[in-house]
Amino acid sequence: MPVSAALPRPSQRSGGTTRSPVRDLLALTENPDVISFAGGLPAPEHFDLDGLRRSFDAALRQPGGLQYSTSEGNPALREFIADRYTSQGLPTTRDEILVTTGSQQALSLLAMSLLDPGDTVFVERPSYLAALQAFTLAGARVVGVPTTADGIDLDALDRLAEQHRPKLMYTVPTFQNPTGTSLGITTREGLAALASRHGFRIIEDEPYRELRYSGDPLPYLACFANEHVITVGSFSKVLAPGLRLGWIRTRTDIHSTVVVTKQAADLHTSTVDQAAAAHYVTGGGLETSLERIRAAYGERRDAMLAALPQTLPTGSTWSTPHGGMFVWVTLPTGHDSTRHLSAAIGQSVAYVPGAPFYAERPDPATLRLSFTTYEPATIREGLSRLERSFG
Amino acid sequence: MPVSAALPRPSQRSGGTTRSPVRDLLALTENPDVISFAGGLPAPEHFDLDGLRRSFDAALRQPGGLQYSTSEGNPALREFIADRYTSQGLPTTRDEILVTTGSQQALSLLAMSLLDPGDTVFVERPSYLAALQAFTLAGARVVGVPTTADGIDLDALDRLAEQHRPKLMYTVPTFQNPTGTSLGITTREGLAALASRHGFRIIEDEPYRELRYSGDPLPYLACFANEHVITVGSFSKVLAPGLRLGWIRTRTDIHSTVVVTKQAADLHTSTVDQAAAAHYVTGGGLETSLERIRAAYGERRDAMLAALPQTLPTGSTWSTPHGGMFVWVTLPTGHDSTRHLSAAIGQSVAYVPGAPFYAERPDPATLRLSFTTYEPATIREGLSRLERSFG
Repeated sequence: MPVSAALPRPSQRSGGTTRSPVRDLLALTENPDVISFAGGLPAPEHFDLDGLRRSFDAALRQPGGLQYSTSEGNPALREFIADRYTSQGLPTTRDEILVTTGSQQALSLLAMSLLDPGDTVFVERPSYLAALQAFTLAGARVVGVPTTADGIDLDALDRLAEQHRPKLMYTVPTFQNPTGTSLGITTREGLAALASRHGFRIIEDEPYRELRYSGDPLPYLACFANEHVITVGSFSKVLAPGLRLGWIRTRTDIHSTVVVTKQAADLHTSTVDQAAAAHYVTGGGLETSLERIRAAYGERRDAMLAALPQTLPTGSTWSTPHGGMFVWVTLPTGHDSTRHLSAAIGQSVAYVPGAPFYAERPDPATLRLSFTTYEPATIREGLSRLERSFG
Repeated sequence: MPVSAALPRPSQRSGGTTRSPVRDLLALTENPDVISFAGGLPAPEHFDLDGLRRSFDAALRQPGGLQYSTSEGNPALREFIADRYTSQGLPTTRDEILVTTGSQQALSLLAMSLLDPGDTVFVERPSYLAALQAFTLAGARVVGVPTTADGIDLDALDRLAEQHRPKLMYTVPTFQNPTGTSLGITTREGLAALASRHGFRIIEDEPYRELRYSGDPLPYLACFANEHVITVGSFSKVLAPGLRLGWIRTRTDIHSTVVVTKQAADLHTSTVDQAAAAHYVTGGGLETSLERIRAAYGERRDAMLAALPQTLPTGSTWSTPHGGMFVWVTLPTGHDSTRHLSAAIGQSVAYVPGAPFYAERPDPATLRLSFTTYEPATIREGLSRLERSFG
């Protein structure tokens, strides 16, 4: 036996995940000279700091406010979330809601609860990249499903499901990250029918749903296939991301598995943050916050959409979202947004190249712009810098 | 193709984890008639609610107090943790510290970062059961290493390491959960030497280290084999568990892997809770809290140890810990603490049977008593009920 053996290497599964370029770009946004459309950050001036401070104060006057709590989460908070689904046409009870440490944890818990190494997960082409990380870390094979202007290409999905026998499809049906587009009602219905026919589950991730600035609400996917669809939600975009509060609307046959996985992951989510959020939302704070945020973000979206025709090279196309945080741009063929980024940063403006949002075969001409962080005037200034970077 | 296919089952890996009986027992403690020695709960009357409320208030007056933050964690908090290690004889820089959502998440991140399915992890016999859950969920094979009065049996470990080639050994070196015992200095040295010789890593989990009521501090395992030992810590037992704040002292060769795994798990830990904790500990609150908690818990330990000789059946043995939260009892051969539990609950007193703390071949005669939750008089009353249950 040797006197000293080499250290073992990190796990193979973790080698498949790479550091999120979006999060690394957060470093850029710390330079105040750069106008960054890169992050997916809510506008901090619209956080209700005073209201939430009062709610934390109330939470820290309750006995048990700092103690361990149950893995399922704060009962009043779960009740509020369930009632909100019910009022939106998706009947839900408190017992179906599990609070998570942000919706990223919801994805990670579902990946561990539902997938074994080698299982196949379908995602939209392109998709939310931190979801791709969670599935990859669970050892899953991630396959991209082609999308159209109306969202998922159902014929392609049908063929791919026949071929790959997926366990799961992950979708952001409303104001998707990164594209900003929403699945139409016919697509929702058709997607639910395919899940039922092929026997796969759907994770419907809805962090942006409440951020609607125009058009009519669309039904949850779960309304069409209640047992096949696991709905995931988050307070990050509507209250504040720093609280790390999300949730899973679980289904009966997976509920206890997800609770056990939650125990192993972090026992439970912050007792204090949950109690403060429960105090805030049950006191009516969410509606007030949402009204303010929707008005501000709607203006910002309009400012970005109005300026884009002058900004982008002739032949570019982009999404025109009814809500959410993002516009997805496709530059004319031949452009490479990753290579162009240094020219943009040279003009003190930033975006996220589209490539990392693809599970496979990225389209190098794509990029994502977030419109939520800045006032309209700053958005216009940022986009004129972007225009110069193409000049 | 069928019109409707069956839903896929939950993952196989999650089938290997079972609901924690300790957490299910929390339900029991909600009945105020039961004196429960079962939980591992800190005493809530010693949480500094006022002080922490002031710190949350300060945190929620900072710009960025509710925004997304970095996966690594709050810089001031990491600096405080690093300096504390340094002052305790283990030189550490801020960059080596990663904040986690409680130390349970630290274990879960390390399991995912370091273990592939089929890898072997060594644990003490018995060990902390939520750690067993995290390793099982990662697909690892968990093997128990025999222990002696001085902790780990190093000869047995040497033989088992030769046989099983473990990637990792998990240990709670100080005031272990569930036994309350600590590894002596010679055992620490020998364990570090074996890790180096056989080429496995050690996770040294130290949630109780600061809760010392007698005897002298022992060096960290990392002092003996710095590159082989990953130290994990927590504010749960010294500030408040409801904050869910723990950390990993990572090593250079695994740091980026652990950060990526953290991103996939929950992006980052609550910005608010971290900022509040940073404000509290850098303002000197931790030392004041610790003095108060140590004084109270020391009395409670003494009360329990003084009453145990009259409480337990003749021939029982138990640990006499210098700190922490737990006394570990071995009843005379033939006793089964799991079967006895209903008799105990019949007398309105509870404990945790020892069986779930074993990775394999449980000793049915063992049980764990927590002494931190109640005042000495209530401890005495609870133990006299326990005595009656054996009568």
